[in-house]
Amino acid sequence: MTDRRFFSYAGPFSLTELAAMVGAHLSNCADPSILIDDIMPLGSAGNSHLSFMENERYRESLAHSKAGACLISEIHASGAPADMVLLLTDRPRQNFARISQRFYPEEMPGPGLHATASIAASARVGKDCRIDAGAVVGENVSIGDGCWLGANCVIGDWVRIGPVTRIGSNASLSHCDIGARCFIYSGVRIGQPGFGFERDHAGVIKMPQLGRVVIEDDVEIGANSTVDRGSGPDTIIGRGTMIDNLVQIGHNVQIGKGCIIVSMVGIAGSTTVGDHVVIAGQSGVAGHLDIGNGVRIAARSGVTKNIKDGETVGGMPAVPIRDYRRQTAVIRSLVRQARQRLGKG
Amino acid sequence: MTDRRFFSYAGPFSLTELAAMVGAHLSNCADPSILIDDIMPLGSAGNSHLSFMENERYRESLAHSKAGACLISEIHASGAPADMVLLLTDRPRQNFARISQRFYPEEMPGPGLHATASIAASARVGKDCRIDAGAVVGENVSIGDGCWLGANCVIGDWVRIGPVTRIGSNASLSHCDIGARCFIYSGVRIGQPGFGFERDHAGVIKMPQLGRVVIEDDVEIGANSTVDRGSGPDTIIGRGTMIDNLVQIGHNVQIGKGCIIVSMVGIAGSTTVGDHVVIAGQSGVAGHLDIGNGVRIAARSGVTKNIKDGETVGGMPAVPIRDYRRQTAVIRSLVRQARQRLGKG
Amino acid sequence: MTDRRFFSYAGPFSLTELAAMVGAHLSNCADPSILIDDIMPLGSAGNSHLSFMENERYRESLAHSKAGACLISEIHASGAPADMVLLLTDRPRQNFARISQRFYPEEMPGPGLHATASIAASARVGKDCRIDAGAVVGENVSIGDGCWLGANCVIGDWVRIGPVTRIGSNASLSHCDIGARCFIYSGVRIGQPGFGFERDHAGVIKMPQLGRVVIEDDVEIGANSTVDRGSGPDTIIGRGTMIDNLVQIGHNVQIGKGCIIVSMVGIAGSTTVGDHVVIAGQSGVAGHLDIGNGVRIAARSGVTKNIKDGETVGGMPAVPIRDYRRQTAVIRSLVRQARQRLGKG
Repeated sequence: MTDRRFFSYAGPFSLTELAAMVGAHLSNCADPSILIDDIMPLGSAGNSHLSFMENERYRESLAHSKAGACLISEIHASGAPADMVLLLTDRPRQNFARISQRFYPEEMPGPGLHATASIAASARVGKDCRIDAGAVVGENVSIGDGCWLGANCVIGDWVRIGPVTRIGSNASLSHCDIGARCFIYSGVRIGQPGFGFERDHAGVIKMPQLGRVVIEDDVEIGANSTVDRGSGPDTIIGRGTMIDNLVQIGHNVQIGKGCIIVSMVGIAGSTTVGDHVVIAGQSGVAGHLDIGNGVRIAARSGVTKNIKDGETVGGMPAVPIRDYRRQTAVIRSLVRQARQRLGKG
Repeated sequence: MTDRRFFSYAGPFSLTELAAMVGAHLSNCADPSILIDDIMPLGSAGNSHLSFMENERYRESLAHSKAGACLISEIHASGAPADMVLLLTDRPRQNFARISQRFYPEEMPGPGLHATASIAASARVGKDCRIDAGAVVGENVSIGDGCWLGANCVIGDWVRIGPVTRIGSNASLSHCDIGARCFIYSGVRIGQPGFGFERDHAGVIKMPQLGRVVIEDDVEIGANSTVDRGSGPDTIIGRGTMIDNLVQIGHNVQIGKGCIIVSMVGIAGSTTVGDHVVIAGQSGVAGHLDIGNGVRIAARSGVTKNIKDGETVGGMPAVPIRDYRRQTAVIRSLVRQARQRLGKG
Repeated sequence: MTDRRFFSYAGPFSLTELAAMVGAHLSNCADPSILIDDIMPLGSAGNSHLSFMENERYRESLAHSKAGACLISEIHASGAPADMVLLLTDRPRQNFARISQRFYPEEMPGPGLHATASIAASARVGKDCRIDAGAVVGENVSIGDGCWLGANCVIGDWVRIGPVTRIGSNASLSHCDIGARCFIYSGVRIGQPGFGFERDHAGVIKMPQLGRVVIEDDVEIGANSTVDRGSGPDTIIGRGTMIDNLVQIGHNVQIGKGCIIVSMVGIAGSTTVGDHVVIAGQSGVAGHLDIGNGVRIAARSGVTKNIKDGETVGGMPAVPIRDYRRQTAVIRSLVRQARQRLGKG
């Protein structure tokens, strides 16, 4: 049961309304005006709930489900209980997500600038923005319409933020331009100088980091992740890219559009990542590399070389995924032999 | 020497008092009313100090120690200098911890709500709480008696916090219920949406994350760690579990009681971890796995499969620890052979 | 082009001035009073810009560059275009960094204590300090001259900060002494108790963490990194050491001078690291180890044993770098054989 302390409920919706939201076809439906109260997994749904089924693995759950209605594709429809209303669709899971968004629309409390926020007189704040307690907005900052700045976040001088973007509490932004509809979560650090210095006889010399961070539209950056500004060129994160928690993006890194970067990944300085790349959790990518479009990197990989478009890699150092699997198999087999030798010896 | 700027001193204590605190038996003690001023390691202790000895490795240190008194088990007692008062106990180290807590009790400055804290009128704050400067407490938050909220922390609407819990400075909590006597350190992020989305022709669709985070009693979560809220089910951290710094806990993860999760570990979404599990530093656990009770995972392991109760694993992908050690040995031996071939070649 | 919203420009400078800044020798220079407007990479520089060339790899870029002036070493000078002014120097890159610092000096907005900062009456704040909005300075804190405390940072009671040190926004410091000219970035956590506890029949007993963190002069600590205070001894970071983002330093760790610790490294409790050590990204060092002076640890290594002065190691567990490379080669060769067997079989 969704806890309505935390999530605002916008239901119920009739079966007709639900089907229309996602272009599903109602089947086995005696009365399309019946109201559905909530969304629920197959196992816990009751007869006023909508569920979804998308995978052969859930065939049993489907057969025993008490859900009143179910998003389902044609091929699984025959496995549904006789009294379940079906909303036929090719994409049950995606459409369940869409309907979930309608039942529990993302919270945006009313606009307003909290009395304890420090907003520089020279900052321009758009219409319908909400700026929470203790937020700090520096000189000449520009904030688009409909933004929400969380409590105690800090926006450095001259930063630009596009419309309908959310900045989490306690986040710190400087030296950056942020696009529209982004979500920068709590504790994210954007725009600090990259890790660049030279040494000589006189000791360490810091290389001034004179670039920015440019975040395009529809980007999300997870809690406590860090994105350093460029050293001269900019650090760029392309449109629609999703970054999880505790990720490190080094200076001058350029990430394409629609990428997925899972928690605890690190991308070292000056590396270029193409579009629609997936980097699984705890992987690392060395600096100055080119990672092609559509590349997939398995969890806990260490990428030390360029990767061509469309390749999937894994391991440390990362190799084509089939070779990585062979590595694992070869080592397993050597261990088995060693064990047998010991057993015999 | 403990720096009394930072730690408040509650000593001295007599030998009788010290022995009573931990149920130790005084031995070699001419005058049990003698006062002990401080706790100190064997090597640096003087004759007004209490130390402890628990390990054969420290036999030499013991023999040369100038400590006035020492927590020690019976089996090591004969190695102590003739003029050292012994506090005999089976658990010298644990009881040293207990006595240390008495010498330097955890600081809790007086209660009070700082004038610059923003506390919603609808929030309920228990008795004897301390809320520091700049802290933000949202609508309908409930805070138990004796809590301490650090400066600039942010507590989202409707969050519940049990009694005698501490929230570190600059931490952010939302969509969560926190138990009693927890310690959430500085910079922790709890309750942000998990990393969940679907894709189809229309692009990325965010799956609403409609669960909470539930933290049971006596849990600690280290600095800058992140705990995502559930997607529908809750993310749960069981009673007495200790989590170190910079740890990532994904959505829907359920962790049992009394676990120890060391720094930089990541646990991916929907994985279940049993009771009394130890996960050493920088390891990763993939999503949708079951990790049994009492499991131990070596440092820097990558767990990709379910693990049964009581097993110890290591490596990437993680295997039973003996096989992991064999892997290391086998590889070392292959390298040795390669080196010899090169030497001969 | 450097974005002058974010960086304050202090140019132009004459060729004479530039050469004097770094002790370079002007060559091929008809008019040393000519003004240089900006610094720029070889590829994008125009005739009023200064660039640098330091590596055979950039021979082509040099030959085609339109840069008006270039820092270059004698051995590469002959490859420069005929009309390019040369600033001859042994260290083109380091001196480019020095000159960059002169063109864009590090920003330090005017001093002043923001009205919303909470500064305890007992705190001593030096001359010419800047303390930004929402910063919290505890009782008896001592802050040297010329410091800059970022917005919403939190400085715990009795902390000492040396002169000309910067603390980033939303950082938290407690139980520590910080040297001069340090840069602690946004979101850093210093001084929280380390991860130390004992267990016995009565459950978990927290070991009081009674040490401090001591940060010597000229240290940098990257965004969202965490440094735990000592358990009895102090955690120490030596002069001039540079620490990147999201690094974890455990309690009692002692790091020497001039070390470089790259992003996402973890160093477990009570380990000692010598001077001038380099630890590359995502590596881990186990607890209670001695890492010698001048040691180099490759990226994603797991160090489980002491390392002698000057060694270079890699892998998990880490071994001398040559053996690590052999490991990789041996495994690659086994995979190749397996692939061939499968191809044949």
